[in-house]
Amino acid sequence: MLEEAKSFIKTMYNELNYDKERIVDRLKEIETDIQATGTYDHTTEELSYGAKMAWRNSNRCIGRFFWESLTVADARHIQNEDEFIHAIEQHIQIATNNGKIKPYITIFSKDNPPQIYNNQLIRYAGYDDCGDPSEIKVTQLAQHLGWQGEHTDFDVLPLIYKMPNGTMNYYAYPSSLIKEVPIRHHRFPKLEALGLKWYAVPIISSMDLKIGGITYPTAPFNGWYMVNEIAVRNFTDTYRYNLLESVADAFEFDTLRNNSFNKDRALVELNDAVYQSFKNEGVSIVDHVTASKQFERFELNESKQGRDVTGKWSWLAPSLSPTLVSNYHHGYNNEIKEPNFFYKKAETKGCPFH
Amino acid sequence: MLEEAKSFIKTMYNELNYDKERIVDRLKEIETDIQATGTYDHTTEELSYGAKMAWRNSNRCIGRFFWESLTVADARHIQNEDEFIHAIEQHIQIATNNGKIKPYITIFSKDNPPQIYNNQLIRYAGYDDCGDPSEIKVTQLAQHLGWQGEHTDFDVLPLIYKMPNGTMNYYAYPSSLIKEVPIRHHRFPKLEALGLKWYAVPIISSMDLKIGGITYPTAPFNGWYMVNEIAVRNFTDTYRYNLLESVADAFEFDTLRNNSFNKDRALVELNDAVYQSFKNEGVSIVDHVTASKQFERFELNESKQGRDVTGKWSWLAPSLSPTLVSNYHHGYNNEIKEPNFFYKKAETKGCPFH
Repeated sequence: MLEEAKSFIKTMYNELNYDKERIVDRLKEIETDIQATGTYDHTTEELSYGAKMAWRNSNRCIGRFFWESLTVADARHIQNEDEFIHAIEQHIQIATNNGKIKPYITIFSKDNPPQIYNNQLIRYAGYDDCGDPSEIKVTQLAQHLGWQGEHTDFDVLPLIYKMPNGTMNYYAYPSSLIKEVPIRHHRFPKLEALGLKWYAVPIISSMDLKIGGITYPTAPFNGWYMVNEIAVRNFTDTYRYNLLESVADAFEFDTLRNNSFNKDRALVELNDAVYQSFKNEGVSIVDHVTASKQFERFELNESKQGRDVTGKWSWLAPSLSPTLVSNYHHGYNNEIKEPNFFYKKAETKGCPFH
Repeated sequence: MLEEAKSFIKTMYNELNYDKERIVDRLKEIETDIQATGTYDHTTEELSYGAKMAWRNSNRCIGRFFWESLTVADARHIQNEDEFIHAIEQHIQIATNNGKIKPYITIFSKDNPPQIYNNQLIRYAGYDDCGDPSEIKVTQLAQHLGWQGEHTDFDVLPLIYKMPNGTMNYYAYPSSLIKEVPIRHHRFPKLEALGLKWYAVPIISSMDLKIGGITYPTAPFNGWYMVNEIAVRNFTDTYRYNLLESVADAFEFDTLRNNSFNKDRALVELNDAVYQSFKNEGVSIVDHVTASKQFERFELNESKQGRDVTGKWSWLAPSLSPTLVSNYHHGYNNEIKEPNFFYKKAETKGCPFH
């Protein structure tokens, strides 16, 4: 832990141009703390900058241009249930920001934090015959705890959590808290009849945040959506909503024969529909080509700072028309730097295996 | 070499259910030859089956379902120029097969073979201001040797070669030998006015074939095109023909703003155009969704034979709408088995770095 702490403090303090004396003093302090207690505490500033660095180092994320804009909520002191629920609701409300989404992270205690069992704070339930198949296990857990969904395709799952020394429990958000966007296409009015919608803010709640040798097991964080995540992966992957045929029908494509290219057309129109719908509701979203341009600026900024950008090609290449963006045509070094976010279990949960 | 020879012979002979005695005899023979001469010769059957295995083991290739259908021309005896040119022309003619393309490989001598300097037997010249930028170096070499193109976007490059103990030379194919397909779209007649075309048969001529410890440096081979190779990579990559804006104009898209999704639409229509055009000319081509289905059948066949399928995900995921196919949602082990094809130089020549 001391080595990792040293590496983090040196990197951070150097990036912020703090003088050497300050680094030496802080390292001494940390060493003393670790020797005395086996661990150490981050200052609020270290927590905040470390979380931003974790975003900057997230190899799979195409949105890292905005890493410095992350708002960091220090929730390390929270131990009681009401405060916890309040912090989560605050996160959702501030991050949603009435549509103008703010990148946001809430970091709970490193020791005995409240535990969250959801993959994302907001997510739709999955049942045998409807909803999001990737959430079937979380849905069963919620039901086991007494939650009852309405059995639609878009039941917002409750928060499932356990306070330190408490038992597992669920909390259903007030519906006014959860911004959702109904999906329409201005050229294909039949799409609206499918009743598709998606929630505004993707808040990952299943990853560990590691900073300088310290693990924060509960640290939900969000940016905003890139359109393909919803329109391609969530809506059309066959093991997710599997909607390609339904939407092709709404778009009035007469055939989905492989060599008709209508599957490809339906995919493009669905992306356009999701993008238009979010924009019309005033909810932040980014298309894949713009996101990639922003990533190029991130790469340029990092290069100016003398830092290498690590990345995972298979995630940085968008799932729609990947060759249209520069990321496709690069190689990336997938070395994992810290601070960073880490999956708790096998990395492949609900993700492609690459 | 003996170890690699042993491994190949055992694998091949076992796959073909040859009895043990035959394997032992052949291995003894090979061992004797290697001890006496430092090398050994493949039988015609070994050459043929080894080439097929090399295709089967090509991790980047989505078309491997057809590996057993490869026609293998044994050209190991060819040492004079006329015979060499004839063998190359035979390859092009038989593989083209008036449009019904045959997977085909011509294998020249392992010792002092004729050398080929082209990336593919058929390829368009690249100039500073037109043509295929990926062929600028080969074009300069051809010009240096005295060849003069017509300076269009689609000048077929001559064969550039050197016979053993000869000097480098070029040979311009008779135009009747090279089947080309003019690109049209039945719903967008303006596309035809761009005068786009592409050659029918992609015959890779820049890779080594390695079988059982023996390297064949000159072994041009072909399958048929998957549509995205032409429509996405060759026509729209910015460092290739870079045609996205021109074709979007022909398709009458009013804007290419990133968030209009018209870049994506233009890409789909261009794929449809290339596919339709090849089919209308009676030239073999496969769409990405069908190719992936065929790859699934290949995986199933291999599994039935108790063989693992190795693969390179970034190449097996098509460049158009990659999530529509199962390859995207798999992991692949990119271990390189032999027999196989190997790039002569850095692997990245003209290819993405992944």
